[in-house]
Amino acid sequence: MCISKDAKVAVVMGSDSDLSVMKNCIKVLKDFEIDYEVMVCSAHRTPDKAAAFATNAHNNGIDVIIAAAGKAAHLAGVLAAHTPVPVIGVPIKSSTMDGLDSLLSTVQMPSGIPVATVAIDGAENAALLAVQILSIAYHELRHKMIDYKKSLAEKVEKKNIELQNKLSEI
Amino acid sequence: MCISKDAKVAVVMGSDSDLSVMKNCIKVLKDFEIDYEVMVCSAHRTPDKAAAFATNAHNNGIDVIIAAAGKAAHLAGVLAAHTPVPVIGVPIKSSTMDGLDSLLSTVQMPSGIPVATVAIDGAENAALLAVQILSIAYHELRHKMIDYKKSLAEKVEKKNIELQNKLSEI
Amino acid sequence: MCISKDAKVAVVMGSDSDLSVMKNCIKVLKDFEIDYEVMVCSAHRTPDKAAAFATNAHNNGIDVIIAAAGKAAHLAGVLAAHTPVPVIGVPIKSSTMDGLDSLLSTVQMPSGIPVATVAIDGAENAALLAVQILSIAYHELRHKMIDYKKSLAEKVEKKNIELQNKLSEI
Amino acid sequence: MCISKDAKVAVVMGSDSDLSVMKNCIKVLKDFEIDYEVMVCSAHRTPDKAAAFATNAHNNGIDVIIAAAGKAAHLAGVLAAHTPVPVIGVPIKSSTMDGLDSLLSTVQMPSGIPVATVAIDGAENAALLAVQILSIAYHELRHKMIDYKKSLAEKVEKKNIELQNKLSEI
Amino acid sequence: MCISKDAKVAVVMGSDSDLSVMKNCIKVLKDFEIDYEVMVCSAHRTPDKAAAFATNAHNNGIDVIIAAAGKAAHLAGVLAAHTPVPVIGVPIKSSTMDGLDSLLSTVQMPSGIPVATVAIDGAENAALLAVQILSIAYHELRHKMIDYKKSLAEKVEKKNIELQNKLSEI
Amino acid sequence: MCISKDAKVAVVMGSDSDLSVMKNCIKVLKDFEIDYEVMVCSAHRTPDKAAAFATNAHNNGIDVIIAAAGKAAHLAGVLAAHTPVPVIGVPIKSSTMDGLDSLLSTVQMPSGIPVATVAIDGAENAALLAVQILSIAYHELRHKMIDYKKSLAEKVEKKNIELQNKLSEI
Amino acid sequence: MCISKDAKVAVVMGSDSDLSVMKNCIKVLKDFEIDYEVMVCSAHRTPDKAAAFATNAHNNGIDVIIAAAGKAAHLAGVLAAHTPVPVIGVPIKSSTMDGLDSLLSTVQMPSGIPVATVAIDGAENAALLAVQILSIAYHELRHKMIDYKKSLAEKVEKKNIELQNKLSEI
Amino acid sequence: MCISKDAKVAVVMGSDSDLSVMKNCIKVLKDFEIDYEVMVCSAHRTPDKAAAFATNAHNNGIDVIIAAAGKAAHLAGVLAAHTPVPVIGVPIKSSTMDGLDSLLSTVQMPSGIPVATVAIDGAENAALLAVQILSIAYHELRHKMIDYKKSLAEKVEKKNIELQNKLSEI
Repeated sequence: MCISKDAKVAVVMGSDSDLSVMKNCIKVLKDFEIDYEVMVCSAHRTPDKAAAFATNAHNNGIDVIIAAAGKAAHLAGVLAAHTPVPVIGVPIKSSTMDGLDSLLSTVQMPSGIPVATVAIDGAENAALLAVQILSIAYHELRHKMIDYKKSLAEKVEKKNIELQNKLSEI
Repeated sequence: MCISKDAKVAVVMGSDSDLSVMKNCIKVLKDFEIDYEVMVCSAHRTPDKAAAFATNAHNNGIDVIIAAAGKAAHLAGVLAAHTPVPVIGVPIKSSTMDGLDSLLSTVQMPSGIPVATVAIDGAENAALLAVQILSIAYHELRHKMIDYKKSLAEKVEKKNIELQNKLSEI
Repeated sequence: MCISKDAKVAVVMGSDSDLSVMKNCIKVLKDFEIDYEVMVCSAHRTPDKAAAFATNAHNNGIDVIIAAAGKAAHLAGVLAAHTPVPVIGVPIKSSTMDGLDSLLSTVQMPSGIPVATVAIDGAENAALLAVQILSIAYHELRHKMIDYKKSLAEKVEKKNIELQNKLSEI
Repeated sequence: MCISKDAKVAVVMGSDSDLSVMKNCIKVLKDFEIDYEVMVCSAHRTPDKAAAFATNAHNNGIDVIIAAAGKAAHLAGVLAAHTPVPVIGVPIKSSTMDGLDSLLSTVQMPSGIPVATVAIDGAENAALLAVQILSIAYHELRHKMIDYKKSLAEKVEKKNIELQNKLSEI
Repeated sequence: MCISKDAKVAVVMGSDSDLSVMKNCIKVLKDFEIDYEVMVCSAHRTPDKAAAFATNAHNNGIDVIIAAAGKAAHLAGVLAAHTPVPVIGVPIKSSTMDGLDSLLSTVQMPSGIPVATVAIDGAENAALLAVQILSIAYHELRHKMIDYKKSLAEKVEKKNIELQNKLSEI
Repeated sequence: MCISKDAKVAVVMGSDSDLSVMKNCIKVLKDFEIDYEVMVCSAHRTPDKAAAFATNAHNNGIDVIIAAAGKAAHLAGVLAAHTPVPVIGVPIKSSTMDGLDSLLSTVQMPSGIPVATVAIDGAENAALLAVQILSIAYHELRHKMIDYKKSLAEKVEKKNIELQNKLSEI
Repeated sequence: MCISKDAKVAVVMGSDSDLSVMKNCIKVLKDFEIDYEVMVCSAHRTPDKAAAFATNAHNNGIDVIIAAAGKAAHLAGVLAAHTPVPVIGVPIKSSTMDGLDSLLSTVQMPSGIPVATVAIDGAENAALLAVQILSIAYHELRHKMIDYKKSLAEKVEKKNIELQNKLSEI
Repeated sequence: MCISKDAKVAVVMGSDSDLSVMKNCIKVLKDFEIDYEVMVCSAHRTPDKAAAFATNAHNNGIDVIIAAAGKAAHLAGVLAAHTPVPVIGVPIKSSTMDGLDSLLSTVQMPSGIPVATVAIDGAENAALLAVQILSIAYHELRHKMIDYKKSLAEKVEKKNIELQNKLSEI
């Protein structure tokens, strides 16, 4: 069994403007006390850096890569091409096409090179998926995830109680 | 470090008709010598079985769940709701909407419960993603995956050589 | 013939944020003097509660369930899986995909488990559909519905008269 | 309590070509021993007949109307405009747009006039939804529906057993 | 040859809220000095009025009907079902689906009952199309239309000159 | 009042392959005994011919132009740019995008230049719309159109009777 | 080898409102010191001017045409029909359909008449594509483009460093 | 002025299955007597080869790159990232989504790295666009292109004459 403080996630963004969405991803990683690094790296503007990063990721102790990009979102697929490490893709909604372009560019990968795609702007879920993946090797993350799911249910229950109070105002 | 023969993947299909697509997933798991179980289990027709299966999955030694369903494809999301294990969703194209309904129903999960979505009918990639995920804990799978990626490149190179011969016929 | 004060509708929301849309549903139920209960209950965050609620609904006197959810909107389908009671689905528009994901996830149910889907954000119509459904058993609701339809026509006629006055300003 | 042999469903098709899809609806109504009538009636080609039919439906003992139409599928909405009876809409896929036009034309009804929409070509589910609706008034249909849901689960289980045998051939 | 002051256009809106878009239609009819009437009339809320209006339109001297509606926009099709007069449909964009539902509901009419559909929110073009249609019978409208097209070209030319001045600021 | 044998419609196709769809348009024009001419003329391959044809159409006695094209279907819009005559656009479905590209390219015309768009592959309706338009000037076409609408209703009624006989076989 | 000060690009807009997007195109041309002219010219409102401009473009020293238009965006295709010069199309997002109509109208050109289409509102990329095209003949532009690509990478690297500082605030 | 026999185009396909579409591209290059090379090279399966090829393209005398790929079609964008040479992208339709995924993945490139996108499966137009681009430097291609456009018009005219003969059979 492995020690989860050794688990490491890389969060890669195609543009620094993606940070407003991706900070929710980083917060979750912090909450689960998972080591991470964050970088801006573009499949199109810095292709060599992207390739070098991905090629070396598994030797540099990266367990999971989370890649966020918008429009013709090639970043996750390009990183996946260069690494045996699982790559989670976050399609970022941009100013046109309501995220459909980012989603299809990320998820519709050809046979041989998968990208584990989450919802458009699904930054939080990308981190949670990384935790679930890591929990196979790092067992205490499994327990944290089970606790997290319980807390989710409790929050819904709390919201439900608050809702009952609002009903009289309708 | 773990022994990969202990790695176990569950492949769940919403309908037995999904087997024609999902057999490509099973073949990849066989090729990587990963233990797996396959079942037909519907989020809508057998919801209790689906819930029970997912709730117990991590205690039954399931490391990764692959869930395939079409139309309003709730299966992957419903299984993910009940388990801390990573769930990979395969949207299956059905007779209308060209797979878009399956894709959106699978990938657009709300915050808290991710589904790792692959391409529409992306059965093969679902298995490869499972291998990548498992390779964090089961290191010999990492080596197999690196070999697999090499073989992919070699196949493309071979196809390229064959292509050169076909060009004269155009 | 049944007494309509016995008719009961359950309004279930995947998130408390859906209340801003769904209050229009609740208002209509109030106007028709139909007993109702409202709850926040998520197919993904509180799956056991959702299953238990739906499984017991018909024994608890629930005649119709109205379920509202957004994105990969599994709630209506998941409730329908567990109950013989008719389930009305309200796809809620979220921040991406303009409601298409919610609509397809709600309406494209596989054979065996229908969801009676209304328009995206169609909260008011969900309640009216519930009234129409209940009016088969609770006859005085039939008369109220006929009156309601008359009032709709009268409102349009009134708007038409107001319009004539606005025309001179164009 | 009402006697279900008195329950009556009208199945209306915009074109006789819709019968190839809608026969699955009629079969389910037969299986549940519900009285029904079937007619071809177009919102566009026979608008007066459609209006007269819908206006008189509740006085003629029709409890539920099922309306199937394709393309700019106005039939369900037009019938709903004229009746207090619940109207179930079945969007029929035609030769272009993969059913999206039929779906949006059926489901996106404005406030005041709901149509209970099922999946594209969802003829079987339209009948099942009618059964669920009728079961509020006609209680023995409730029991039949519960039995039907059990049989659905059993069929899935049977398919699952058959699947296990096919796995060795992959 | 006919006298164009006898030409008459009816502008029908499904909701008074459509006036904000349709006032551009009315302005064009005014500019071309065509007689018109405007009314709010819903295919769903006032179906009998809609049917009566359309049935009598050609006897009441209406040459062209312009019908504007949103969402499941049945108005133009329903009017067309009842009249031999050409019906121009204006799909109105509503709060979801970006106008696609209105467009498909208006344009995808089945064989036998055409609707002359213009762009989403294309109120101005609906009026211009009416002018072009009327100009077959009312010849002085032909000349006005030719002048209008010239004025369009002149406006573009003027904008082009203004543009040249703005270029230095870039 | 005008003599309808003087009415003339031009049917223009972007490609001769459109004839398989557009022959249904020509048949309707024949049935209504309207004079017509047909030509292949492309907005992109023969732009000068298209411009010359449209510029001269009204002087050559053309009352209505019907233009059919697929993909980036510019033909109807380009003809409309050059003529005061009403232009009916028929979006032709091609091998990709299920007709959506043709539809949007035809219907989404900017302010100033309308195209009266019918359904994708709606060749028959294009001719019927032309008849309705011409019937404003050519009154005997009005009577033929009224008769046509009656025959449509009769055909539906006949289909309805045939349907009743088929029901026993289900 | 040619002298790049002789290179000339024409930027054509369907409407002066497109300038807010297209100024980014003009800025890039300025930065690369390429001669350009800009004009408002509509395929629909000034078709003769558009045809004349395109027909004469190559004799007037225009090397590349950039055409921007929205909705049923015919401008690029119409210009391409009249010229042997490469035409770059910029689909402009308008108030409905999120740019999809403009994109499909621009890119889905039939065989024989290509339009080099860039992203929706991709004004900057249209200019960069023009530079790449011109650099085949005007070699010093090749060097500028290589420098530009380097500067892109450097900007990403700078953003990456800034990002590291922001991370502590999350 | 340059000698066009020196012009060179590289045609790159993501998969050898794309040849069935792309042979139409190669035929056009042959017809225009342009030197070309063809290769299978995948952005995902052979990313290093793709990067190396693109990085060296301009030094190896490649003037224009044509890249064809389907699904999440990253090939054109990835090549463009590595080269100052203009890249033409051909989105290839695959078994799902009717080409929309390929189109959006190819055309929606972020600022800085354009791809000149042609229609889905637009292989022929990709070659013609390459000819137009090359004709800026290689002037005899300009004349060939002008001749080609004339031949296009003549073919349409011939088809038009043939059409007239077919009309009597309708």
